[in-house]
Amino acid sequence: MGRTSTAKEKLITSAIELIGNRSYNAVGVQELCDHSGVKKGSFYHFFPSKRDLTLEAIDAMWTKFKEQMLDPIFNSDIPAFEKLNVLINKSYEYQTSAKECTGCVTGCGIGNLALELSTQDEIIRQKIEQIFEEWAQYFEDMIVDAINEGTLSVDTDPRSTSQAILAYMEGVSLMGKTFNDPTMLSRLGEGMTQLCISKKKVALGDNM
Amino acid sequence: MGRTSTAKEKLITSAIELIGNRSYNAVGVQELCDHSGVKKGSFYHFFPSKRDLTLEAIDAMWTKFKEQMLDPIFNSDIPAFEKLNVLINKSYEYQTSAKECTGCVTGCGIGNLALELSTQDEIIRQKIEQIFEEWAQYFEDMIVDAINEGTLSVDTDPRSTSQAILAYMEGVSLMGKTFNDPTMLSRLGEGMTQLCISKKKVALGDNM
Repeated sequence: MGRTSTAKEKLITSAIELIGNRSYNAVGVQELCDHSGVKKGSFYHFFPSKRDLTLEAIDAMWTKFKEQMLDPIFNSDIPAFEKLNVLINKSYEYQTSAKECTGCVTGCGIGNLALELSTQDEIIRQKIEQIFEEWAQYFEDMIVDAINEGTLSVDTDPRSTSQAILAYMEGVSLMGKTFNDPTMLSRLGEGMTQLCISKKKVALGDNM
Repeated sequence: MGRTSTAKEKLITSAIELIGNRSYNAVGVQELCDHSGVKKGSFYHFFPSKRDLTLEAIDAMWTKFKEQMLDPIFNSDIPAFEKLNVLINKSYEYQTSAKECTGCVTGCGIGNLALELSTQDEIIRQKIEQIFEEWAQYFEDMIVDAINEGTLSVDTDPRSTSQAILAYMEGVSLMGKTFNDPTMLSRLGEGMTQLCISKKKVALGDNM
């Protein structure tokens, strides 16, 4: 692990930071080169365009999010339905830290690009759609486990409920970014569990 | 109403259409002038910058959304809690129509700008925060009415629930845009009512 990162990796890291903190169209190739300390010729050696760099940056963002956020939570041994609460707390901590570092709640880097670019770039839209499918699968598996553990009703539709949870998570991130208030994530987060609640076994009572 | 619209109105209309279909940073002053048939000198007579035009375009978008969507639904005499279902259906129809016209689900014009610009422009962020407060107030009033009508429990917190509903509505729009699928709005829309459901009176049963 002693080697220094390559120019390509530096460009991807800069793209995640600069585009993530502002937007795709607000950041140009020159600024990406300046920020990463990579010459323009080197940029075009690795990437035909900013769009191609962005496609790799989206992959890198998603891999990091899975490795640091989703996998540790959803591969853990805690009861399935508790995992949403852990995700809410971690998301709150992440956005609190983003605000401490940059002054701003930066929201979801992937959701930001989804809204900025989905009507403009079909390849990027399809990539994010695929990522959202994979992301919702974590929730779907959790719901199936919760049904097997007896904490969710067998009537629960794992697929539509998983998409609803993802939609809500993205919406809460959007609210947190708009109000520049990370507590939106902790205060509204419980809605993620509520989206399953009408299908929860009545035996668990009204307060779950 | 026989007069033709002024250059200023044409620029606002073009901004709503062009920025709404793509993004703020993807559209320049020249294109806004070309699209509206207004000369550049005239643009700068009305607006010091694209940002100033955008601030007025956001106001115009919000006014139109209230007049054509929120007011007719939330000022109607139907039972309070039914209003969310009407909103879901209207949103689905609107995004279906957007896709028929442009080939794309365009999502929420205000939410799009919220994610693109909130970290970059404090004045625009504050304007959208204020709009979201006003928007959530429609839901909050509906919840208070539903409590008075006996369809929601007195335990329901109107303010936090109204913010949760708005977050979910924005998240579902984001999913619809990302999947370029207006049926996301109809299929996931019922989650808006589920976000109130754990607080619904048990007497109403499990299927509301």
